[in-house]
Amino acid sequence: MTKTLILNGPNLNLLGQRQPEIYGAETLADVEAACAALATDLGLGAVACLQSNHEGQLVDWIQEARGTRDAIVINPGAYSHTSVAILDALNAFDGLVVEVHISNIHRREAFRHHSYVSGRADAVIAGLGTEGYMAALRYLARHA
Amino acid sequence: MTKTLILNGPNLNLLGQRQPEIYGAETLADVEAACAALATDLGLGAVACLQSNHEGQLVDWIQEARGTRDAIVINPGAYSHTSVAILDALNAFDGLVVEVHISNIHRREAFRHHSYVSGRADAVIAGLGTEGYMAALRYLARHA
Amino acid sequence: MTKTLILNGPNLNLLGQRQPEIYGAETLADVEAACAALATDLGLGAVACLQSNHEGQLVDWIQEARGTRDAIVINPGAYSHTSVAILDALNAFDGLVVEVHISNIHRREAFRHHSYVSGRADAVIAGLGTEGYMAALRYLARHA
Amino acid sequence: MTKTLILNGPNLNLLGQRQPEIYGAETLADVEAACAALATDLGLGAVACLQSNHEGQLVDWIQEARGTRDAIVINPGAYSHTSVAILDALNAFDGLVVEVHISNIHRREAFRHHSYVSGRADAVIAGLGTEGYMAALRYLARHA
Amino acid sequence: MTKTLILNGPNLNLLGQRQPEIYGAETLADVEAACAALATDLGLGAVACLQSNHEGQLVDWIQEARGTRDAIVINPGAYSHTSVAILDALNAFDGLVVEVHISNIHRREAFRHHSYVSGRADAVIAGLGTEGYMAALRYLARHA
Amino acid sequence: MTKTLILNGPNLNLLGQRQPEIYGAETLADVEAACAALATDLGLGAVACLQSNHEGQLVDWIQEARGTRDAIVINPGAYSHTSVAILDALNAFDGLVVEVHISNIHRREAFRHHSYVSGRADAVIAGLGTEGYMAALRYLARHA
Amino acid sequence: MTKTLILNGPNLNLLGQRQPEIYGAETLADVEAACAALATDLGLGAVACLQSNHEGQLVDWIQEARGTRDAIVINPGAYSHTSVAILDALNAFDGLVVEVHISNIHRREAFRHHSYVSGRADAVIAGLGTEGYMAALRYLARHA
Amino acid sequence: MTKTLILNGPNLNLLGQRQPEIYGAETLADVEAACAALATDLGLGAVACLQSNHEGQLVDWIQEARGTRDAIVINPGAYSHTSVAILDALNAFDGLVVEVHISNIHRREAFRHHSYVSGRADAVIAGLGTEGYMAALRYLARHA
Amino acid sequence: MTKTLILNGPNLNLLGQRQPEIYGAETLADVEAACAALATDLGLGAVACLQSNHEGQLVDWIQEARGTRDAIVINPGAYSHTSVAILDALNAFDGLVVEVHISNIHRREAFRHHSYVSGRADAVIAGLGTEGYMAALRYLARHA
Amino acid sequence: MTKTLILNGPNLNLLGQRQPEIYGAETLADVEAACAALATDLGLGAVACLQSNHEGQLVDWIQEARGTRDAIVINPGAYSHTSVAILDALNAFDGLVVEVHISNIHRREAFRHHSYVSGRADAVIAGLGTEGYMAALRYLARHA
Amino acid sequence: MTKTLILNGPNLNLLGQRQPEIYGAETLADVEAACAALATDLGLGAVACLQSNHEGQLVDWIQEARGTRDAIVINPGAYSHTSVAILDALNAFDGLVVEVHISNIHRREAFRHHSYVSGRADAVIAGLGTEGYMAALRYLARHA
Amino acid sequence: MTKTLILNGPNLNLLGQRQPEIYGAETLADVEAACAALATDLGLGAVACLQSNHEGQLVDWIQEARGTRDAIVINPGAYSHTSVAILDALNAFDGLVVEVHISNIHRREAFRHHSYVSGRADAVIAGLGTEGYMAALRYLARHA
Repeated sequence: MTKTLILNGPNLNLLGQRQPEIYGAETLADVEAACAALATDLGLGAVACLQSNHEGQLVDWIQEARGTRDAIVINPGAYSHTSVAILDALNAFDGLVVEVHISNIHRREAFRHHSYVSGRADAVIAGLGTEGYMAALRYLARHA
Repeated sequence: MTKTLILNGPNLNLLGQRQPEIYGAETLADVEAACAALATDLGLGAVACLQSNHEGQLVDWIQEARGTRDAIVINPGAYSHTSVAILDALNAFDGLVVEVHISNIHRREAFRHHSYVSGRADAVIAGLGTEGYMAALRYLARHA
Repeated sequence: MTKTLILNGPNLNLLGQRQPEIYGAETLADVEAACAALATDLGLGAVACLQSNHEGQLVDWIQEARGTRDAIVINPGAYSHTSVAILDALNAFDGLVVEVHISNIHRREAFRHHSYVSGRADAVIAGLGTEGYMAALRYLARHA
Repeated sequence: MTKTLILNGPNLNLLGQRQPEIYGAETLADVEAACAALATDLGLGAVACLQSNHEGQLVDWIQEARGTRDAIVINPGAYSHTSVAILDALNAFDGLVVEVHISNIHRREAFRHHSYVSGRADAVIAGLGTEGYMAALRYLARHA
Repeated sequence: MTKTLILNGPNLNLLGQRQPEIYGAETLADVEAACAALATDLGLGAVACLQSNHEGQLVDWIQEARGTRDAIVINPGAYSHTSVAILDALNAFDGLVVEVHISNIHRREAFRHHSYVSGRADAVIAGLGTEGYMAALRYLARHA
Repeated sequence: MTKTLILNGPNLNLLGQRQPEIYGAETLADVEAACAALATDLGLGAVACLQSNHEGQLVDWIQEARGTRDAIVINPGAYSHTSVAILDALNAFDGLVVEVHISNIHRREAFRHHSYVSGRADAVIAGLGTEGYMAALRYLARHA
Repeated sequence: MTKTLILNGPNLNLLGQRQPEIYGAETLADVEAACAALATDLGLGAVACLQSNHEGQLVDWIQEARGTRDAIVINPGAYSHTSVAILDALNAFDGLVVEVHISNIHRREAFRHHSYVSGRADAVIAGLGTEGYMAALRYLARHA
Repeated sequence: MTKTLILNGPNLNLLGQRQPEIYGAETLADVEAACAALATDLGLGAVACLQSNHEGQLVDWIQEARGTRDAIVINPGAYSHTSVAILDALNAFDGLVVEVHISNIHRREAFRHHSYVSGRADAVIAGLGTEGYMAALRYLARHA
Repeated sequence: MTKTLILNGPNLNLLGQRQPEIYGAETLADVEAACAALATDLGLGAVACLQSNHEGQLVDWIQEARGTRDAIVINPGAYSHTSVAILDALNAFDGLVVEVHISNIHRREAFRHHSYVSGRADAVIAGLGTEGYMAALRYLARHA
Repeated sequence: MTKTLILNGPNLNLLGQRQPEIYGAETLADVEAACAALATDLGLGAVACLQSNHEGQLVDWIQEARGTRDAIVINPGAYSHTSVAILDALNAFDGLVVEVHISNIHRREAFRHHSYVSGRADAVIAGLGTEGYMAALRYLARHA
Repeated sequence: MTKTLILNGPNLNLLGQRQPEIYGAETLADVEAACAALATDLGLGAVACLQSNHEGQLVDWIQEARGTRDAIVINPGAYSHTSVAILDALNAFDGLVVEVHISNIHRREAFRHHSYVSGRADAVIAGLGTEGYMAALRYLARHA
Repeated sequence: MTKTLILNGPNLNLLGQRQPEIYGAETLADVEAACAALATDLGLGAVACLQSNHEGQLVDWIQEARGTRDAIVINPGAYSHTSVAILDALNAFDGLVVEVHISNIHRREAFRHHSYVSGRADAVIAGLGTEGYMAALRYLARHA
């Protein structure tokens, strides 16, 4: 059984709270619930879900996942583009890492095209919307 | 029903034929068959699968998909990084486009980090292995 | 009435505590008091003043300003140059945003010439000293 | 008493003449009149206001301000980005210099993000609209 | 007597916990104890040792060292490469600053070759392993 | 006999008027007189001396030198770094061209290290002070 | 009827006066006459033809064309590569703009490959010789 | 008589088939017919018209034009920006070459601003719409 | 015995057909015949010689060489500088690869100084003229 | 016992001879004597000390250290930034290498921030003054 | 008869002395002997062979080859990437120049991909091992 | 009396020996003799003249000039562009430094446009031919 940590970075707590007529009404809680349900269906262990706007908090949690979690699904949000600290924490984690972006970051500003985390991730998913998390879990179910 | 074109670019016909002890024995034909099966399961229309090493041929096929196909799942291979012509053909296609890379291109040479196609794609998947194609189809099943 | 948040980033809590013979003895508390007084004079609502050295804390506060504040006057300090997370939080805020720098950042090191926040701000003020905060409030009084 | 020169560069003579439904009907003459009035209120000396589309003319005027003016408020317009000659003329002027841009140049094309004048200016104001000139005068009233 | 702060940044709390057969079993606590012992031998005042994964926390501590500490030995870890906020805090600290990296950062990825802190530090040590901290203390013993 | 035009660009009319205790009291008129005297000594034809802060005026004068002057000694001042128009005018002039800078531009800001005119000039002199003009005339006396 | 301004920038007044055995004997006056004749043939209104070596003069004329002219054919010469002021003036002009270069600027020095004006022009013609002006007029005859 | 080859690159076969309410209903066949008619009017030899999405095919045709065609009018489409092979083939062709782009490529994405072909072409036309081909033929009629 | 494929890219079929007074009259067929003769002399197996202007065709042939050929001597011509697809095909080929350029590409335009193929090739030869192919065969005779 | 070579590059022979009131009166001979004394204390073998202004001489000496020396402490001076030859010589040396700079090169001109040698060195020390040599010897005493 | 100088740069004297189980036991003396033998076979004059780690020595020798040697085969080693002086000396030599690198420098670090010498050399050979020298001699035998 | 060292770098010993029909027959010895004669005329002390192709030798000589020479006229040749060591040696010399280039380096390859020495020199002269040395001496006669 794969114990998975689902980690969301800055501003992802606002999911579903802004312009729902455009982005949909799905909140981060909804996404986390859907992840939990799918993980059960896939025979993965129970997922843990955490979100923070604080880079250091995300580093702390990734460190705590060492030895307690088998895989991390991470949407680093804006820290994708600026945080070497999160990259280093992931480098110290031995399990699988899947990076998820809800939107296609390559269609946005140039400074969003590069992610430090992508150099460590086993897989990168962008633009699938919140289904990206599900695709990540399916990948873990086969490989973990 | 969503009529989908699954398009593979240069050298992807070699899938499964090289270092199978490392990369697995799954061939492109196997992947295409799995796509067809999953498309049926998802209630998508029959998928068409094409592969070419020729940039111009890929452009021709994308053009022919205009009006006959609703979505394209494309692994442009090396042409991701060098072909504006494929980008332009996709720009002239009105349906959904999902870009798939079997490996995580961000862990390879720097010249593979940029893809012209990503600026047009609705979603980008890299490093999920051949499951990337399945994730793409699931995305289409929900959105197309 | 415009409810305004005045937000100061890292190291601005040291204002007035260092080399007062050069930079003056005005502390951040002095500046905040002057802002409050001017806001009353201008008929703006009561201002709230917050300062943190923590990027994540600043993101949290900007998020909390959504729906509760009409405008933000922000001096992002060093995070101007490195934080996409603060930019994203401000992008999710619908009110007016004025960016203030006490010194003229264009006369300092090259890495201080670019600010992520400037791409979102409605106005940018640099080098007016602490009067920059007052100029920002006057701008809000006319536009908010 | 501070004798101030208010200097406007190329195309600023068009202020208020184009798309007034969007940019407002305020003309450069209106702005100059408002500056004169505020200068009187602030106890500054009478302001002189000049505008030219000619780089050399602006250099001439800045030179003439040496010894006759105490401060310059300059909106160099497009010459901000291309004129070393104006920078040099300002370097030969000993008084205070405040650079004003009506719009936030950091939200426009990349070639507008750099201003030669900013490296000489004591303060830089962008995006406050025509109030930027007023903020500049207030700054001079305190420092000159 | 020189009161010294020894400050370690993100992920350095993992020292000695990962691949001890390769990196050795020495933990951060061991290093801190060795520093304390050496400081005593050198006649330096008692050292204080702090570690955090949070950029803002590190800024807070550097600020608190103003007036209470004479010197800082800092291993900024990943924040070396991305934090202007830590640089600014150190700029506001008047004592000696020695930057220590356990590994030789110049043999790692290109983005690790530049450190904002190096532009402020009095000395920089990389690749001496944990002895780098000792070399830093010896330097302080002679100069502080 | 070589008819020479001595052409000075923006802000060079201020020569000798600013900080004479540092830069000396020699004015542009003094330099021009010295040039005239030396030209006579060297057996060169009478020199013509012109100065303008206007790029277009300098272009006009260079064009007028076609057919009427044999050589141009030019100190383009700030236009060295920004004017392709002056370069083009000099390209249309068939005589010798010597570029003079009073100071050593290579010890100043990076944007002063490149001169468009240098790509056309037969010789470039920087940092000899006003003697640079004399060195230019001596060169012409031998080659023209 | 389309009232057209034909505007030529620096050094174009030399056309036909230099190396006629190579560039031909056609002068700017000849070109302007040919433009006038063709405009009559095409049923366009009378063309006005202006040339200046002064950037500011060109800006002035473009401003005066607002409301009095329907289209501008401009050969900005060297100012193509350095003038944001001309770009801004053209941005304030609502009619059609065609940029003409007599030579193919892409075969010349690298600094001639970029033109600020091209980002505003409706069409760009380079290398057709003086026929480029005629092609521009034909374009206007169809679209204006 | 000038035998001319009119060569169109990738995706230009779609001309007139997409968003005709915006781009017009003129197809590539229409353009080719208009070219043929104009060539006859101008007294040029019969034109040959070819289009391909294949870079190699375009190279083949350019080679075949050696000795059989006097001039090439080429719209290389997306290959403008990526094909050194087409440039080399054109370098081996001795006749006149005119490069045509229907839209003004300088107003599009940055990667479309550079064309390898422009370094070989005798003239470059962009943004005249399909009239660009006609302007090219008129140029050939005078020079070939 | 080493079975060798000699592969020539775009425009190399023109060898000897252009400016023979300069480049010599040796055609590609001549070179291929010389290669065949030398291969026999060296005791290498019979060489196969192929040329195409089509990138995709070259990729096809490299793929077909897998398992049937022991070594490839390739002159990728213009595709050296633009084709990742050919690089990828060569990466999937296990034998020796020697890259040959007839001219010294380092004395030509800057965009010809980089070759994707060089990162895969075992050896690179440029500027030896057609003898480069012979040098490549001699290298294979010793190592294959 | 570790036989160590202490190697100093260009201009380090001037140590202590220039501005002693600022830099101290310690000469290179003093430093070398201190190194010898410390090496004895640490139980290292006798150190050899060499200095040259000649890049080739430094390469020669590094080569001679192969097989005769166990470690090199090198201050490459200006050659740090320009010499690949010294890097290559060190790459051919199997022992430990410690790079020492007396000043903190990261606070000097940008061209001094990169050192070719750092990519080979086991450790890098900058800004410790001449104590850097001692820190290097202590490192060797523990590791050699 | 062609008198040839074979010149080897820094560290090439170590050939065959390091890791012979990997790089082979062939020394520079062996290579030089093989060159001499081949030159005799090819009817070239006796070759002279020189090696130095000193850039200036190499320049001296290239100068001495003027008038005494007809051709130079040079392996500049690390000086390929940093020496303009060697380039200049070769520019003053009128004979043929062939540049040889034993390894394929394009598969090594990025700073080894550019060689100043390549801009002067008639031919460049990399990665053929020591056979590269032989290929160079054969080229000379045909052309000198 | 000013004791002057005239220092020439690599390849300048070839002066006058190559293409005398173009560059003239003046040798370095001639130039040195002319310098000696002019120095006497100007009342300067006897000049010393040295030339070397060796970077280290030039550094040695500059060091020896400390305390024995009042000024250095240096033509660093190719080392202008690559030698930080010569810059450092000049930085340790307290007298006047004039940099001379016989040709105008700004009309040559781009890598010759930057000189490390220019950042230290008091004046820079390029393109005056060998008269540049005389202009340098005249400058010293006035300032030393």
